[in-house]
Amino acid sequence: MRIKMIFSYDGTNFIGYQKQVNERTVQGEIEKKLSQIFSQAIIIHASGRTDLNVHALRQVAHFDIPKEVDLGKLRYSLNCILPKDIHVISLNYVSDEFHARYCALKKTYKYILNMGEANPFFENYRYEFKRQLDVDKMKECANLFVGEHNFQNFTTKEVDLKQFVRTIFNLDIEQDGNIVTFVVTGTGFMKHMVRMIVGTLVQVGLGKIDIADVRAYFNDDRRPVNHLVPGCGLYLVDVFYREDDKDDTL
Amino acid sequence: MRIKMIFSYDGTNFIGYQKQVNERTVQGEIEKKLSQIFSQAIIIHASGRTDLNVHALRQVAHFDIPKEVDLGKLRYSLNCILPKDIHVISLNYVSDEFHARYCALKKTYKYILNMGEANPFFENYRYEFKRQLDVDKMKECANLFVGEHNFQNFTTKEVDLKQFVRTIFNLDIEQDGNIVTFVVTGTGFMKHMVRMIVGTLVQVGLGKIDIADVRAYFNDDRRPVNHLVPGCGLYLVDVFYREDDKDDTL
Repeated sequence: MRIKMIFSYDGTNFIGYQKQVNERTVQGEIEKKLSQIFSQAIIIHASGRTDLNVHALRQVAHFDIPKEVDLGKLRYSLNCILPKDIHVISLNYVSDEFHARYCALKKTYKYILNMGEANPFFENYRYEFKRQLDVDKMKECANLFVGEHNFQNFTTKEVDLKQFVRTIFNLDIEQDGNIVTFVVTGTGFMKHMVRMIVGTLVQVGLGKIDIADVRAYFNDDRRPVNHLVPGCGLYLVDVFYREDDKDDTL
Repeated sequence: MRIKMIFSYDGTNFIGYQKQVNERTVQGEIEKKLSQIFSQAIIIHASGRTDLNVHALRQVAHFDIPKEVDLGKLRYSLNCILPKDIHVISLNYVSDEFHARYCALKKTYKYILNMGEANPFFENYRYEFKRQLDVDKMKECANLFVGEHNFQNFTTKEVDLKQFVRTIFNLDIEQDGNIVTFVVTGTGFMKHMVRMIVGTLVQVGLGKIDIADVRAYFNDDRRPVNHLVPGCGLYLVDVFYREDDKDDTL
């Protein structure tokens, strides 16, 4: 029996999503508790990893269980024994063909930056940048990222050229006082990709580089940008699948 | 030269406000940095302590420095070297008669409780109660606390009877969906007092005790209530002084 799980986590106290020996990870904590409940090893497969300190509002994973159980009760039990920085939002039975990673059609990420004075309550939840940015200039530049592009210079991933191509459907920059929020939706994002795109836009906002410089990053030379904003400002907002019209009913 | 300092802190990773040997405390961290800046021991005197995990939006303290300095620069330096979970909001020169504790006229605290589903991003910032409360009943009962009363049964402090008398100016309960916020202003609050008042009101909201039971707590018998809500939901909102009309101008 295959289950699709939607869950959120506060990334502050995790070394990252992916399981690692002797480290506190999101995957490790969830698998430990699921294996405890089912008295056998349960492996979960997420839509993708998130890095150190990165948060998730709605991450998606699938896993298989040996026999049918009441999912309302399973969700309740899981939330009781999971650490409080992970929360299971929903569990649903899905077909065996569902794969959280390979079936994902698109993902939305959000990045929050504060140009104003630091606030101790948000130190782990946004980038306390403390300087002003030219937001209009950044908005102008954001359009360059939309569409299908070779994003080889916007990732630290090391593979062959072809696999660097991704499509970004939209990249919106919203300003509310000193808070600047970047919302990006695309087919998929490689290692550090969102944080390198935001980092590049921040350089534009500071006037250190201009639109021509950003265009140059889309050339074929492998020369990754070195503007990586901190993980604590990044949120995986949602992952979209074809069957999204029929789930989420507990 | 005496300085009045207004500062905020996220109480999550502190053992409490008050300095303790070998423990991470708010007072300890600030004194360490001030002493570093002035190359001599600086002691700070706050309006009062806050406990383990309790937050402060505007705590007030005073301290003396050996010679006049530019307070804008001092605030900037302090915020650079202080840990990110403490933030200095303002520094102002005040008369030598100002005492952050003895001159405080009143204080406001806020307590945040969530009746709905837990959210991993708020686990350290509110009480994830996860059950419904009869908010109207609690509001009815809240009025019992307003006025001058002997609050001996609403504190774990151990002193003589007379010193248990405090005045509460108002105690408001606001509901926004599943979020219930208690806002209380009074002359001063003893150890655990706000959390024991909120804890008592929560028992009323659950229907476990009624108004007559609460009235009984104001009798002369020393028999503290045993309803203490967690510290993470509590915020020191502000401390008020006579001279509040002339400060806060950096």
